[in-house]
Amino acid sequence: MTIVYFAMACGVLAVLYGVFTGMQVLRASPGDARMQAIATAIQEGAGAYLGRQYRAVAVVGVLVAILLVPTVSLLSAAGFVLGALLSGAAGYVGMTISVRANVRTAEAARRSLQAGLTLAFRSGAITGMLVAGLGLLAIAGLFWYLVAVAGHAPNDREVVEALTALAFGASLISIFARLGGGIFTKAADVGADLVGKVEAGIPEDDPRNPAVIADNVGDNVGDCAGMAADLFETYVVTLGLTMVSIALLVQASSAELLALMALPLVVGGACILASIAGTYMVRLGRSGSIMGALYKGLWTTILLAVPLIYVSCRWVLGDLDAVIGGAGFLDPGSDALTTEAALGAAATPGTHFTGMDLFWCMLIGLGVTALLVWITEYYTGTRYRPVRSIARASATGHGTNVIQGLAIGLESTALPTLVIVVAVIAAYQLAGIIGVAFAATALLALAGMVVALDAYGPVTDNAGGIAEMAGLPDDVRQRTDALDAVGNTTKAVTKGYAIGSAALAALVLFGAYTTDLNRFFPELAVDFSLSNPYVIVGLLLGALLPYLFGAFGMTAVGRAAGSVVEDVRRQFRDDPGIMAGTSRPNYAHTVDIVTRAAIREMIVPSLLPVLSPILVYFVIATVAGQAQGFAALGAMLLGVIVSGLFVAISMTSGGGAWDNAKKYIEDGNYGGKGSEAHMAAVTGDTVGDPYKDTAGPAVNPMIKITNIVALLLLAALAGS
Amino acid sequence: MTIVYFAMACGVLAVLYGVFTGMQVLRASPGDARMQAIATAIQEGAGAYLGRQYRAVAVVGVLVAILLVPTVSLLSAAGFVLGALLSGAAGYVGMTISVRANVRTAEAARRSLQAGLTLAFRSGAITGMLVAGLGLLAIAGLFWYLVAVAGHAPNDREVVEALTALAFGASLISIFARLGGGIFTKAADVGADLVGKVEAGIPEDDPRNPAVIADNVGDNVGDCAGMAADLFETYVVTLGLTMVSIALLVQASSAELLALMALPLVVGGACILASIAGTYMVRLGRSGSIMGALYKGLWTTILLAVPLIYVSCRWVLGDLDAVIGGAGFLDPGSDALTTEAALGAAATPGTHFTGMDLFWCMLIGLGVTALLVWITEYYTGTRYRPVRSIARASATGHGTNVIQGLAIGLESTALPTLVIVVAVIAAYQLAGIIGVAFAATALLALAGMVVALDAYGPVTDNAGGIAEMAGLPDDVRQRTDALDAVGNTTKAVTKGYAIGSAALAALVLFGAYTTDLNRFFPELAVDFSLSNPYVIVGLLLGALLPYLFGAFGMTAVGRAAGSVVEDVRRQFRDDPGIMAGTSRPNYAHTVDIVTRAAIREMIVPSLLPVLSPILVYFVIATVAGQAQGFAALGAMLLGVIVSGLFVAISMTSGGGAWDNAKKYIEDGNYGGKGSEAHMAAVTGDTVGDPYKDTAGPAVNPMIKITNIVALLLLAALAGS
Repeated sequence: MTIVYFAMACGVLAVLYGVFTGMQVLRASPGDARMQAIATAIQEGAGAYLGRQYRAVAVVGVLVAILLVPTVSLLSAAGFVLGALLSGAAGYVGMTISVRANVRTAEAARRSLQAGLTLAFRSGAITGMLVAGLGLLAIAGLFWYLVAVAGHAPNDREVVEALTALAFGASLISIFARLGGGIFTKAADVGADLVGKVEAGIPEDDPRNPAVIADNVGDNVGDCAGMAADLFETYVVTLGLTMVSIALLVQASSAELLALMALPLVVGGACILASIAGTYMVRLGRSGSIMGALYKGLWTTILLAVPLIYVSCRWVLGDLDAVIGGAGFLDPGSDALTTEAALGAAATPGTHFTGMDLFWCMLIGLGVTALLVWITEYYTGTRYRPVRSIARASATGHGTNVIQGLAIGLESTALPTLVIVVAVIAAYQLAGIIGVAFAATALLALAGMVVALDAYGPVTDNAGGIAEMAGLPDDVRQRTDALDAVGNTTKAVTKGYAIGSAALAALVLFGAYTTDLNRFFPELAVDFSLSNPYVIVGLLLGALLPYLFGAFGMTAVGRAAGSVVEDVRRQFRDDPGIMAGTSRPNYAHTVDIVTRAAIREMIVPSLLPVLSPILVYFVIATVAGQAQGFAALGAMLLGVIVSGLFVAISMTSGGGAWDNAKKYIEDGNYGGKGSEAHMAAVTGDTVGDPYKDTAGPAVNPMIKITNIVALLLLAALAGS
Repeated sequence: MTIVYFAMACGVLAVLYGVFTGMQVLRASPGDARMQAIATAIQEGAGAYLGRQYRAVAVVGVLVAILLVPTVSLLSAAGFVLGALLSGAAGYVGMTISVRANVRTAEAARRSLQAGLTLAFRSGAITGMLVAGLGLLAIAGLFWYLVAVAGHAPNDREVVEALTALAFGASLISIFARLGGGIFTKAADVGADLVGKVEAGIPEDDPRNPAVIADNVGDNVGDCAGMAADLFETYVVTLGLTMVSIALLVQASSAELLALMALPLVVGGACILASIAGTYMVRLGRSGSIMGALYKGLWTTILLAVPLIYVSCRWVLGDLDAVIGGAGFLDPGSDALTTEAALGAAATPGTHFTGMDLFWCMLIGLGVTALLVWITEYYTGTRYRPVRSIARASATGHGTNVIQGLAIGLESTALPTLVIVVAVIAAYQLAGIIGVAFAATALLALAGMVVALDAYGPVTDNAGGIAEMAGLPDDVRQRTDALDAVGNTTKAVTKGYAIGSAALAALVLFGAYTTDLNRFFPELAVDFSLSNPYVIVGLLLGALLPYLFGAFGMTAVGRAAGSVVEDVRRQFRDDPGIMAGTSRPNYAHTVDIVTRAAIREMIVPSLLPVLSPILVYFVIATVAGQAQGFAALGAMLLGVIVSGLFVAISMTSGGGAWDNAKKYIEDGNYGGKGSEAHMAAVTGDTVGDPYKDTAGPAVNPMIKITNIVALLLLAALAGS
């Protein structure tokens, strides 16, 4: 249990880092009265939206929790509530800091670029550390309670179910937060641009635009709160299900099992230490490169993580030589899973692995992180071929800009897929499915640092808006612009990272599904072979989900943006003083419009991944029997990742590339601002908005939720 | 053998229909000298392109044929050459008629809408009947030669291999034709629009635009020749592999087996009769609806096919009650496949089915055709929500038009997927995997009619262009426009139909793969379960192919269009007389530029699906052993369809919807021609062009070729 205490201590440390850094940020000067007034409007809008979103989600959450008590267990319901609350808390607190750091970053940018960078990054780091810290505390705390207090064996059914339910709670919040926030931010952004830039001919962030505050609120609720909930979910699911699969699959003594299950927690803790150290390395070098400064932090974290993970493995596992599979490794006579069947399906029986094997697997995970970051930067950075090819295509018009952007999006899926494939093969060769799980764990253990890089984005985006609206001097605006440009790439990085981890976790999740299936329905011979037509049916239906979900997300943004356009047009019409600059537009009203639209639009698509697995199972089971129902459901879980990986990456990388192609042209290439090429690039950017910030990133929680609902459905069916 | 003779007779009849209708078309008046001059330029351009394309493909084809002799067999090489030659012939002859019917349609449209419709549709029907007739002749003739002349048993290895190689030949031509033609047509189209409409401000089809002939040539080489090769390939693969799977999987007497294997041929023949009857029903009703007239032909064909298929089943099969699977049904001691293993993997052992079961399966196939046509019309017709929503979104700008079009594309995948899933389940319940194969066969048996509807499109498109360039009166131009508008929907229909059949055929192809695997490597226990990580790896790599292929296709169009733009700009600059209308542009030079560009750009992407399966097998086999290599390869075959189905449908339906949204606006909605909404809709149309005519449709042959290469790789590995 010392090991678990260490992990919990690291979690507490991360939260404390958040508290102290938060106090530091809040102590900074919030600027003059005008800046504060703008910031207050953003704070109020963001608070109002998040409050309403959480109330709406709470209704769903309470219903689900009540439903879980009779169908699965009370403990599951409790785990679900814990996951949901902490996921919400991570997003809420992060956003609360973010909407206060924005104005302070603008103010700090008056002094120097480094001052602005430090403030913005520190506030991002708060969100990052809260995500990792609360996530680790939740898993470690729950595990500690169940094993040390309630006296369960580490691989008891109760532990497995509670960890799964914890993940479910986090996932459910996260899909609503990602999608609702995504719709809000892009509806406000697209709506503001359409009426402001296109119709009224006023620049972005012009205070005369009634949607300008809503646009800034959107950056926070979408890119900060939504993203934080998403990564919290990914963190909890990955670490939690790594522990679950160890419990289900590994043949070892109880003490060894406890040590193995605690290893993900220790690694999580160690990487929090590495991340905290990394945050202090974010400093501008002589070149003044902002991206370089952020990378210093990331590379420091990754490099520090290597020895820390090595020490963790040695400390926790020693000379362990464990075996995955082999029949009957659990206490004979216990009602635990019928291992023979389970392992036949879920792992190569008898794969030996040592602590060092797991260390190498985790090194693979770190390598995947580094490669995904590098690939994403290549596809979305202004210095490389992809973005420049879109900028060049803009010179021949709107159509060619969009064609090239779509092509880049399609192409950008190739390298991440190859990286993931190689990682899966290598980790599997080292330590079977447990190796793949540990690779995913190491990847996610870096979440503190990766989220910090991402949450930095909305702060600088807002800072730029406030600088513009408050009429700060040009050199300040230039600094905030420079800080903001980097945000596009870091935001794309996190999305690629999240979906990449989902692909790695897919095999682990499927392993959990088949193992559970064999435990609950040992008499069913479920055929997961590709020659079973119900497997093909499941793969096709699973592959459909990201497409349908994407369609819903995109049209939702269109509709919600339409409401914004109408509201802004009405305000301009009713009060000509707004355009003249003599009267203040009613910002709060527009925020309210977007809030209602986003909440309304998020419900149906969010329920798609919750209800689809249930529907597919019952329809197929009715037509072709229970075994085929489970086969189709299992295949659906893999279909959703096989198609979702590509949909998500093509959308997020493509969108990021479009955005930066516009920035590249604004930097004076192909005619610069106001040229025909620029107009075309603005079109591409608009198209990329719902791609990269609404539909694309929401695919990740969608995949997880489909999987977890399937696991819970199994438990519920077994109980009934 | 009577049965096979009947099928061959139907094939001959289809070819004769083509010859006589061709003579009819050629007898029609080719219009005045100016029209003839334009038509001659198009003919020369199309001939030159196709000639060069075939020469380029011949190099690859000869290399592959030579390679097949030592690795597989001489007979396979011969089958390959036959498939390649006939696929090329279908495209070449169809296009030759098409480039002569265009000017005659324009001339006929002077008289009446019905006259123009009849001429255009008849010329489309020639291509349709050639595709179905030559396809049927090839399969039936090869089968007849091998069984009746060379004396092989119907399920001998030689028969299976020759039919597979025939399909390979057709596929290889088809991927080059689809992609090369697709790049040509869209490069010319986009290039002509960019310089003509956008830069020079001259209307579409203005004779002063040097790219105008290339644009018209493109319609023929892409939408006619490329499409014909594609559907020929789909026809041959589907019917051929239905026969192959019967040979491999069904347990019956030799006579029963012969009858069963002949059934797809008879059904193909019967549906040719139904299609010929259908072509005579294409007449304008009182409403004057062109789509209605075409539908009359299609529905007549489908309705006639029902009793014809019923009679075929009764005639050929009588009271047959066959069994799929069950061990050892082949002559004991023969070197035929080890059925036990094969059937365990590829079919539920012991599934009984009767002739009536197969009849119902084929009815399902006809039903799928009808539903796919209806769904495609819903998504691409101007009368329904999807196209109108894109038109409405155009009112708020380029960006919202593109967003809505992408959303519609994503959404349009849902209904076809559900239809296919339901069809697979129903057919499988009736007659196992053989039932699914027969559903696909019935779907494809209608190819004659479906291709006729599609090949009608380029003829009317050209007729409109010729009417414009030759300065025919406005009312003629109005008639050709009306004929042309319907072509967008019929073209989308064929693409949905082709990819839908690919999804149905996927299971059959995979069945052939696993059966072959068990025959050639009976000692390998290949694990196709979804819990095998190499299966996941294969699925992911397979799913990547359509994305990468799509990216290549889209950027190829962009690059090739760039060459057109430069050439046109140069011609305008060098000779100001062109814009003044005093001197003729050098059309041939632009055609030559696009030809070179298209040929150059088609090679690398076309080799992607040929080389990927080979690469994946060897890499994985080296890393993890031969069994895992085959597992990954098999999974790749399904990954490519699971992802390709969605990529292809979203691209082709989305593209068709964009195109018709533009037409809907041009009809006077949302401000009509020249409005802001129209400009936005033109952008959407431009984006949709490479989507729907280059990348999307080429996914279908890509899927097939990946599968067939895998089958041949197996045979080659077994031989070495």
